Amino acid sequence: MALIVQKFGGSSVASPEHIKRVARRVADTVDQGHSVVVVVSAMGDTTDDLIDLAVKVSPKRSAREMDMLLTTGEQVSIALLAMALQDIGKDSVSLTGWQAGIRTEAVHSKARITDMDPTRIFSELKEGKVVVVAGFQGISDGGDITTLGRGGSDTTAVALAAALKADLCEIYTDVEGVYSTDPRVVKHARKLQEISYDEMLELANLGAAVLHPRAVEYAKQYKVPLMVRSSFKPTPGTLVKEVATMEKGIVVSGIAHDLNVAKVALIGVPNRKDNLQLVFNTLAKESINVDIIVQSVVHNDRSDISFTVTKDDLTRTLEVLTSLQSTLGAKEIVCEEDLAKVSIVGAGMISNPGVAAQMFQVLSENGMYIKMVSTSEIKVSCVIDAADVHDAVRALHTAFGLDAVEAATVAK
Amino acid sequence: MALIVQKFGGSSVASPEHIKRVARRVADTVDQGHSVVVVVSAMGDTTDDLIDLAVKVSPKRSAREMDMLLTTGEQVSIALLAMALQDIGKDSVSLTGWQAGIRTEAVHSKARITDMDPTRIFSELKEGKVVVVAGFQGISDGGDITTLGRGGSDTTAVALAAALKADLCEIYTDVEGVYSTDPRVVKHARKLQEISYDEMLELANLGAAVLHPRAVEYAKQYKVPLMVRSSFKPTPGTLVKEVATMEKGIVVSGIAHDLNVAKVALIGVPNRKDNLQLVFNTLAKESINVDIIVQSVVHNDRSDISFTVTKDDLTRTLEVLTSLQSTLGAKEIVCEEDLAKVSIVGAGMISNPGVAAQMFQVLSENGMYIKMVSTSEIKVSCVIDAADVHDAVRALHTAFGLDAVEAATVAK
Repeated sequence: MALIVQKFGGSSVASPEHIKRVARRVADTVDQGHSVVVVVSAMGDTTDDLIDLAVKVSPKRSAREMDMLLTTGEQVSIALLAMALQDIGKDSVSLTGWQAGIRTEAVHSKARITDMDPTRIFSELKEGKVVVVAGFQGISDGGDITTLGRGGSDTTAVALAAALKADLCEIYTDVEGVYSTDPRVVKHARKLQEISYDEMLELANLGAAVLHPRAVEYAKQYKVPLMVRSSFKPTPGTLVKEVATMEKGIVVSGIAHDLNVAKVALIGVPNRKDNLQLVFNTLAKESINVDIIVQSVVHNDRSDISFTVTKDDLTRTLEVLTSLQSTLGAKEIVCEEDLAKVSIVGAGMISNPGVAAQMFQVLSENGMYIKMVSTSEIKVSCVIDAADVHDAVRALHTAFGLDAVEAATVAK
Repeated sequence: MALIVQKFGGSSVASPEHIKRVARRVADTVDQGHSVVVVVSAMGDTTDDLIDLAVKVSPKRSAREMDMLLTTGEQVSIALLAMALQDIGKDSVSLTGWQAGIRTEAVHSKARITDMDPTRIFSELKEGKVVVVAGFQGISDGGDITTLGRGGSDTTAVALAAALKADLCEIYTDVEGVYSTDPRVVKHARKLQEISYDEMLELANLGAAVLHPRAVEYAKQYKVPLMVRSSFKPTPGTLVKEVATMEKGIVVSGIAHDLNVAKVALIGVPNRKDNLQLVFNTLAKESINVDIIVQSVVHNDRSDISFTVTKDDLTRTLEVLTSLQSTLGAKEIVCEEDLAKVSIVGAGMISNPGVAAQMFQVLSENGMYIKMVSTSEIKVSCVIDAADVHDAVRALHTAFGLDAVEAATVAK
């Protein structure tokens, strides 16, 4: 008998029918003799509906009051799921974030969990109940209701699993697991049986939307085994754990791509030691996230500084740079929009130094021009023309031996 | 500068526009230099919508989980009202029942308040904030969310006013105050300037839906002055307090009527000392509320027992009596449905013994047959034919000198 934390997102509890299906799914696990703690998000569009209401009431919406408002969404879900479980004979109890002992910073809309007090959950489990916990929410030391921000319910599930020393944390979602690449791009994408936290973290940060990076970080920190699996099918899913069992000959685990990439370059910037920090500090103050940065020395006294931002941030980035241009003494500001980033991720790279070179070769053989490169221990990213990116993903998927025998079934 | 508790019901916060209007109303009071605590109910139909959801999820709906579900309604209202107040420059903070320190019995759907800890409210008021509190809800010693049942938000407001030692508790509603009788029946109904707790309690119990009897009882117990006034008009309303200033020559303050009355009679019941308790204990166990009871001795050894119940309970009442008939030895069970109860209420009756006789005379002069009578210190009720009841109310209203000079404006 194991203790399992199961998390179901908003699309899994979108209607009364969905909630009843989730209840049956949870009951199956109980019938296998396990203790279960369920974490749920707000039903489908509830959060958007509540935001609409707030917009109609006031243009000023304090973060504290938005948290007060939005946390009702999960509270509705937990009550309904507890009823659905009771209806099929499973004793159960719903708990809000504060009742479940989820303590956070006194920050609204994006609080981090500071502490967990699982006393109440343990006492309910001891009475043989399924405990249904509201995701995404907690309580500050001052007694205010807080929310964890994006990816919040995943984080709640992982944090609970850590505090309860659960045997497994299952994240139910609308895909069957973590794929070697986007099955919508590569028909023969392979569902991974296992993946390491670090690889998952790179993939999550590269836009594989299956798990939120914060939840993966938390899982890595507390060594919580995560299972990503389908809400709709009983198939096994992908296990995320400390060190994944390496499949023979597989160096690269996954290939990610991102079409939301714009490149900006400052041309002919005089080499002064504070120029780089001036550019990137100013951008940081404007909350503009910079991804890949490349500085190339052109002449002895001048460099070109290029970097990527998301397309949404491009206009503001150019405004910032224009305001700095004379201070920097930059000759020119240029930008390029129709770009994409393709990345290979794999823990096996560390011991295989030729992987980056192999990636460059595949792209070059396919006539693709690499505009920027960025590497980490387990990742290589290249910026290329947006028009080439799907072909690049397919070519790399085949070249690194990831193609599955059977075509993936794309959920949804 | 006074401390004022203001309560707005569901129809006063039914839409974002309504909420903004309530915010302006609260802001007016703040601008007069007062500290304000606002109690709100769930928006318009929210509670019904949540019940519909629960019905779709499960035929079994545990009271605990229904409380968890329904309390989200007020939580939405408080967040939105706090935002609306902030939007017009009034610093404010919303508090759920548990945050406001409203402790209740560990009973769901109809908990009674056991204790109030106003620490948080006082500290927020000290910071110059308007405190917006969720009505209808509290927390049990075990940390579970509870609800106060029908009339709950009125009770929250009165209990808060008592705990905070507020100078006044204002109940905003869709009528302009407490009337001498239903303005829909008597055009010249008079809005009372003042009424005593006891009179209000009788009127509330007799179906004047302005205030819930529990809230009035609470106000009487803690001597909280209550002002019942309109959400829509700035008119003064009716003040409910310990002893109302008696208007000259006014013995009767109000006239109430109730059309939901059925009469049942057990004919020829042998006079055994346990027969009465057997009948009424059995009805009580079935949660059937009995109102007026009359026992009349017909012969030396047999009586007729008659009593009134609501029309909804008539069928079940007859079933109970039929099952008891042979045990009781009753000859016959009869019932009558097209009945109504008309009542006169007034603290002045205590010192005016002829009031009941005057009521009987008015009814008899108008050709109405009195079927049952029930009296208390400040109330006389008569059961008459339903067809006569509106005429009876009008005749009594005139006879006891209650007709106003101008016709009442009927709100809504």
